[in-house]
Amino acid sequence: MKDFFKVTDLEKVLEYSSLFPVVETELVLLENTPGRILAEKIIADIDLPGFSRSTMDGYAVRASSTFGASEENPAYLNVVGSIAMGESPSFSVEQGETARISTGGMLPNGTDSVVMIEHTEIIDEKTIEAYKSTAPGQNVIEKGEDFTEGNVVLHAGQKIRPQETGLLAAFGKEKIRVFKKPVIGIISTGDEVVPVSQTPHPGKIRDINTYSLSGQVIEAGGIPLAFGIIKDDYKNLLERCREALLDSDMVLISGGSSVGTRDFTIEVLSALPDSEIIVHGISISPGKPTILSRSEKKPLWGLPGHVVSAMIVFSAVVKPFIEKMSGYSPAQKSRFTLSARLSRNVSSAQGRTDYIRVRLTEKEGILWAEPILGKSGLINTMIKADGLIEIGKNVEGLERGTEVRVSLL
Amino acid sequence: MKDFFKVTDLEKVLEYSSLFPVVETELVLLENTPGRILAEKIIADIDLPGFSRSTMDGYAVRASSTFGASEENPAYLNVVGSIAMGESPSFSVEQGETARISTGGMLPNGTDSVVMIEHTEIIDEKTIEAYKSTAPGQNVIEKGEDFTEGNVVLHAGQKIRPQETGLLAAFGKEKIRVFKKPVIGIISTGDEVVPVSQTPHPGKIRDINTYSLSGQVIEAGGIPLAFGIIKDDYKNLLERCREALLDSDMVLISGGSSVGTRDFTIEVLSALPDSEIIVHGISISPGKPTILSRSEKKPLWGLPGHVVSAMIVFSAVVKPFIEKMSGYSPAQKSRFTLSARLSRNVSSAQGRTDYIRVRLTEKEGILWAEPILGKSGLINTMIKADGLIEIGKNVEGLERGTEVRVSLL
Repeated sequence: MKDFFKVTDLEKVLEYSSLFPVVETELVLLENTPGRILAEKIIADIDLPGFSRSTMDGYAVRASSTFGASEENPAYLNVVGSIAMGESPSFSVEQGETARISTGGMLPNGTDSVVMIEHTEIIDEKTIEAYKSTAPGQNVIEKGEDFTEGNVVLHAGQKIRPQETGLLAAFGKEKIRVFKKPVIGIISTGDEVVPVSQTPHPGKIRDINTYSLSGQVIEAGGIPLAFGIIKDDYKNLLERCREALLDSDMVLISGGSSVGTRDFTIEVLSALPDSEIIVHGISISPGKPTILSRSEKKPLWGLPGHVVSAMIVFSAVVKPFIEKMSGYSPAQKSRFTLSARLSRNVSSAQGRTDYIRVRLTEKEGILWAEPILGKSGLINTMIKADGLIEIGKNVEGLERGTEVRVSLL
Repeated sequence: MKDFFKVTDLEKVLEYSSLFPVVETELVLLENTPGRILAEKIIADIDLPGFSRSTMDGYAVRASSTFGASEENPAYLNVVGSIAMGESPSFSVEQGETARISTGGMLPNGTDSVVMIEHTEIIDEKTIEAYKSTAPGQNVIEKGEDFTEGNVVLHAGQKIRPQETGLLAAFGKEKIRVFKKPVIGIISTGDEVVPVSQTPHPGKIRDINTYSLSGQVIEAGGIPLAFGIIKDDYKNLLERCREALLDSDMVLISGGSSVGTRDFTIEVLSALPDSEIIVHGISISPGKPTILSRSEKKPLWGLPGHVVSAMIVFSAVVKPFIEKMSGYSPAQKSRFTLSARLSRNVSSAQGRTDYIRVRLTEKEGILWAEPILGKSGLINTMIKADGLIEIGKNVEGLERGTEVRVSLL
């Protein structure tokens, strides 16, 4: 039994994500774009805004008409009109003249700035006093100032946030090409696993992994598709894997990597059409006995059965694969993690990447990461945890007070 | 025109969120819980696990049988059986005896620990050598070690993450009571605003706010419901507000707070049944001319028309209201924000809370927040921004290098 599988470094495993094709694209309605990954380059086909707009309620002027104006020495301006919102003014404004304008209104020909209404006084129907001078462009958004026609405004691979949806609206994009969400098949294995609807007899436990992994798939931008529980049985697992491969872009098999079931999981993965075992063991803890295989260009994962191990492997390894397959541009990936100080010493074995669950607490403005040590079969450790920290493979341990990066769970 | 509205402090505005009732609850299927807000307390109705389980492949023993065992001086153990996964063992294990067990298997009576298979050698069909001693509880998860029957395991108001969904599965909860997602009606106003499907004539712009606000509502856990564009017209706005109130838990009116339309927006909000204007101006920038009113226990917001101002007011003020109405427990709220160093000096007026858009960049492991200054009508500033920083009302400005908290956008 000393015949242990040869583990692969985490970095190497992550490189294998390029073996798998990016999912196809689809057109979605503008209102359904939030959170999706853009699959096309968006080029400004108009100037934004398409005309010079006032950013204030006030009076549109040529700046030179207000030159030197002050409380003591106001500029007298001739009111030649009023700009209706949404209309293109039909008149021009000359030196010494002005026109009433509201926020968002279009500047008339001959004007370059707006005097705020608070800096004016009405003298009579045709005349106002301005108490402040303006500079050209003041209180105005100029034509094309937001985006200029012909420029690339969004790139394929970007995640669409609310502001990107707003920008797509500004350019009149009613349908947008995005990457499809990859469908992730999920199979639970184990003679001891029973459906959630059953009361487990002694020796049996309910299926947790299907649900925790489904939640993680949703968070990673995929669509979970549950294929139920398979007893430790070669034929049934092979059959279910074939089915799952038909309907999924990736398949997760949890519980299939412990010694008990590992051998026939490997056999099943090898027996699938056009298949190859790529990784059999990863230098991470927890999660070492993880398997990655490929069948007809689709990745299949043998994940640990322990709920915590399965979730951490998902977070550290499977999620980056899902993001890659989703067309999500690596440059845009969750670059920003919280930084906190470790609340006590943590030891770690060299030669493997350790993931430590942490609870975050704030004391006097400092964020502390408190390690939650515990068996990887205990889901309560994940309930208590706010995030994970990674201890690199060349690090023997971290001392109390060390600045660590926390990925929120 | 100097008759300015009296602004309310941000803190005071946020307190008004308690004026509005929390939404009702609903039962959802387990698989639909991720991301929802739990509306019931979950109590462990069984021990988890329900039996002592092995965390390793190996041999179940009474620890005392392995006392003093080493490579030089192994313990000889009598193999009296093998535990099938998912079964309750029908036999007991006595002193000097052992039974084969796999990860997740149920410990037989008489055992308290497991010798890892790597620390054993098979001598014959009935005998093994153990090279290491075990302590009671070693390589075992004991009955009730994860959660003990009768204890509260989850609280109402918690956001359900993948691990909480997994825990609900472990307790056999097929349907879970969660808070409904509040429905947020969205109305765009302004004579200059045209639907996304139209090519705007000079003086007009496409409706951006409906889409950027909808995206923010989704991120805040609500359901956006768009009620289209209303011209600056008292009657139409009143009618549309009535409709929106019927189908929504909250209504957002964007563009209704500038001087041009403010007066009749206030009139409309006052004319709604059982209504009250609660806030007319908030001491924040951008976003000062925001209105909050109440009609029949539902909040209505008059948001600025400028896309950036509307988004920032949403993020700073409206979102906390949505979370409160969603039953989301304040203690659980996005407590953790990124910390970064300001890349240059930023000035700020005293007496108001300023929100500054920032771009995040990392240099030699240090995260820098680079202020993006720009007019609040320019959506490009939000596209470039990774987050917002808040400058408190009693702060005159921040110096380069100051540690700031960044809420990601």
